[in-house]
Amino acid sequence: MGAWLNGTLTPAALIDAADRGFTLGDGLFETIRAVGGRACHLDRHLARLHHGARLLQIPVPYGDAAIGDAITALLHQEGLNDATVRVTLSRGPAPRGLLPPSDPRPTLLITASPPAPAASPARAIIARSTCRNERSPLCGVKSLNYLDNIIARQEAAARGGDEAILLNTQGRVADTSIANLILELDGKLVTPPLSDGALPGIMRGLLIDRAGVAECSIAPEDLYRANSACLSSSLALRPLASVDGRVIGDGGKAATACCAKAIA
Amino acid sequence: MGAWLNGTLTPAALIDAADRGFTLGDGLFETIRAVGGRACHLDRHLARLHHGARLLQIPVPYGDAAIGDAITALLHQEGLNDATVRVTLSRGPAPRGLLPPSDPRPTLLITASPPAPAASPARAIIARSTCRNERSPLCGVKSLNYLDNIIARQEAAARGGDEAILLNTQGRVADTSIANLILELDGKLVTPPLSDGALPGIMRGLLIDRAGVAECSIAPEDLYRANSACLSSSLALRPLASVDGRVIGDGGKAATACCAKAIA
Repeated sequence: MGAWLNGTLTPAALIDAADRGFTLGDGLFETIRAVGGRACHLDRHLARLHHGARLLQIPVPYGDAAIGDAITALLHQEGLNDATVRVTLSRGPAPRGLLPPSDPRPTLLITASPPAPAASPARAIIARSTCRNERSPLCGVKSLNYLDNIIARQEAAARGGDEAILLNTQGRVADTSIANLILELDGKLVTPPLSDGALPGIMRGLLIDRAGVAECSIAPEDLYRANSACLSSSLALRPLASVDGRVIGDGGKAATACCAKAIA
Repeated sequence: MGAWLNGTLTPAALIDAADRGFTLGDGLFETIRAVGGRACHLDRHLARLHHGARLLQIPVPYGDAAIGDAITALLHQEGLNDATVRVTLSRGPAPRGLLPPSDPRPTLLITASPPAPAASPARAIIARSTCRNERSPLCGVKSLNYLDNIIARQEAAARGGDEAILLNTQGRVADTSIANLILELDGKLVTPPLSDGALPGIMRGLLIDRAGVAECSIAPEDLYRANSACLSSSLALRPLASVDGRVIGDGGKAATACCAKAIA
């Protein structure tokens, strides 16, 4: 897989084993849809990356325009028009110790892969194995610390599902392992608030701005009385068919269609 | 920095940028003290590594004896007798997607560095920026997801401290950013229980077995009434001098001495 790594296009990227992204999960990423050779909503993605970088105090070693150019160049090198682009920012290599070095040399890696085929409607489970810590500031950024989500996703597979809904420590719905949740509830489109531990998804933000989706704290029981529900990520809108084996409303058709129309 | 990487000694280890350790923090590690060319308590470290690997369903690609031999060979290559050894196990390279591949090719990396000089007594703060999620199974393993601890440690530095105490979501004391807490309280040595989110430290386990340290849920107020307290990690015992600027008991002397005697 080709990549753009710290200013250089390369057919195969290698990372220093002392990179804190590898040793401590010390970094951030963005997953971006590219259509026709262009990254969609790059401004929003980079704004979120900068927000995360400020929280973690990681300098972003390239300007936004340079990152945009790098994505274009990488897509050209890889011969991809439509793609899934990933921008990874890590603290970079450092000696051992938890406190970041005073002179970090961050790693900025960009990769691209062919777009995934559209996923079938999600058969989700509510994860029992772990929960989202809504009191950690990491909920507000897209960090490299994905193990809770991986564990939840593995649980889904073990229980015959293909996506996991994460509750927070108070038992409220946060989001899923890779997407935000949008419900049609009492005639309105709603999504869990950031204060309940939802990741501030780029598509979620667009749907709040353009589809009138409102933030609303959601209990697990609310899932079962929704008229329709879908999962939103930067890559796709996906109908939510069922939760723990129970069909949700219309199986996700109306919510997905309504959201798709708003962002078309 | 030299390393042993998947069976090969190398002067400088490089990791595939698609390694899930780098992209998702999908892995585990052990930090092990080596004295006289030998890893201390390697059996306990490897038992914890296996426990974590079972939770995450990551196959450990080498047997315990091979890992022990690798550590010995690496210390010899690096010319180190006393050292800090780190064993990192990641899920290895994989295409994008959260669900681990069905045929993982895990990465096992071993590095070694000279032992750090003994740290001065800790001036800790109680972290306000984040908290430990005691309901995540990740508390029970030493995973690569260290960002909450890093944030807490950065907060300590910003507030003039050199270590951070993490509370759990219920406000109980869990541990510090890199160590367990041992308190002399009401005439007994105690440490927060795993159910409060404490990492199952190897030194902590030794102190429970050999120094009669008992698990006991600890409130922040308990810190201030302790007669003495210390921080335990696989690398060192460190007196706890103060918390949020208030001196703790005798500044850590008695607790440190008592623990050091038990493991001598």
